[in-house]
Amino acid sequence: MHGKIYIIPTTLGDSDIDVIPQKTIETIRSIRYFTVEDIRTARRYLSKIKMPVKIDELIFLELNEHTKQDEISELLVPVFQGNDIGIISDAGVPCVADPGATIIDYAHKKNIKIVPLTGPSSILLALMAAGMNGQNFAFAGYLPVKEQQRCRRIQFLEKRSKNENQTQIFIETPYRNLQLFKSFVSICNPSTQLCIAANITLADEFIKTMTIEKWKNSEPDINKKPCIFILQG
Amino acid sequence: MHGKIYIIPTTLGDSDIDVIPQKTIETIRSIRYFTVEDIRTARRYLSKIKMPVKIDELIFLELNEHTKQDEISELLVPVFQGNDIGIISDAGVPCVADPGATIIDYAHKKNIKIVPLTGPSSILLALMAAGMNGQNFAFAGYLPVKEQQRCRRIQFLEKRSKNENQTQIFIETPYRNLQLFKSFVSICNPSTQLCIAANITLADEFIKTMTIEKWKNSEPDINKKPCIFILQG
Repeated sequence: MHGKIYIIPTTLGDSDIDVIPQKTIETIRSIRYFTVEDIRTARRYLSKIKMPVKIDELIFLELNEHTKQDEISELLVPVFQGNDIGIISDAGVPCVADPGATIIDYAHKKNIKIVPLTGPSSILLALMAAGMNGQNFAFAGYLPVKEQQRCRRIQFLEKRSKNENQTQIFIETPYRNLQLFKSFVSICNPSTQLCIAANITLADEFIKTMTIEKWKNSEPDINKKPCIFILQG
Repeated sequence: MHGKIYIIPTTLGDSDIDVIPQKTIETIRSIRYFTVEDIRTARRYLSKIKMPVKIDELIFLELNEHTKQDEISELLVPVFQGNDIGIISDAGVPCVADPGATIIDYAHKKNIKIVPLTGPSSILLALMAAGMNGQNFAFAGYLPVKEQQRCRRIQFLEKRSKNENQTQIFIETPYRNLQLFKSFVSICNPSTQLCIAANITLADEFIKTMTIEKWKNSEPDINKKPCIFILQG
């Protein structure tokens, strides 16, 4: 009998674990094998969860952008031996704008049961709070770093947003947030709506939707803060 | 001083409230004004939350597909009077494939603080568990009911999924699930991946990703069960 794979959300940054549901906490406490994006970050999270055994007795394997396709099957050895494993990324939910999907894809092919657990996702929370179309939306991930390509991509997605009434969601490396903000402000139509959501679930959470025209006079304090950008043309 | 608007997730169907984080529960307990999709459903949920006052002492206003644009400002009267309000939909998170976005849009324009709370979203949980591209995905909501239009839309989105490597997410009215399943199976490419996620977070949760070719021989037991469909061409 194979084990199951639990997809385990973590907090967004250094928040209290009261954003993690009791069912998620109890499931984590029952697991001994973890496949994680970064071992140190995962150990710190599991300390907060108060595991019933010492953290040193848990087994950690790493899964991140350096993991090769042929290493995926090795990560599943504990599952084939009948153990449940938990997948944990550095912040929020694995497999959505975070590593994890390759192992899940492989696991489905091997008929392993996958159980996603509830927890905070900055993308979902930002979308809930944006006040934009939540019946039709797309997450476009990171935009190109090079200016010209980035601008073209923004124009393309702003146009799609308008034509298809599709909300567009983006994420950026925190130290590039202001650069991306400036691109939006300089490229997009003045009437386009832009939601900026920074430090979601933290004490200084900032979520604001305004037109590009209004953002022009009010640069947000988002430098180096985890941030989601949402646009509706 | 204006109140805040809390966007409050509920359980998905009749599950235990252990999928709701402690922080969300405590925030709900502090609120007396609720704008809800359906009053009876909201009262039942708030009973489980164990409010510190009697349910009859709470004030409920309804916000659903029948609410007109000019009624939105009335719903915010308690906020302008300094009270926090909580928005609750029938299942999962408000504003994402559920009512709520119109009031949030209006509230941003009035400079009211919006606070989204963590809880279960069938769309997010299904996407986590699908094993598909989580760096680039779109939620297309409900597909057209009429066969010909539905088929054209599926073909269009399957093609976009392949060309743009964009995962496509759909939802359907539960009694039409099998009809939609049959459309996917008859229209899509045999090698296209389809994830079916039904009764998420409930005891009989079912989540499975296979190729269209394999689904042809294995009709899932999804009739009248809340279900998310995810496709990758």
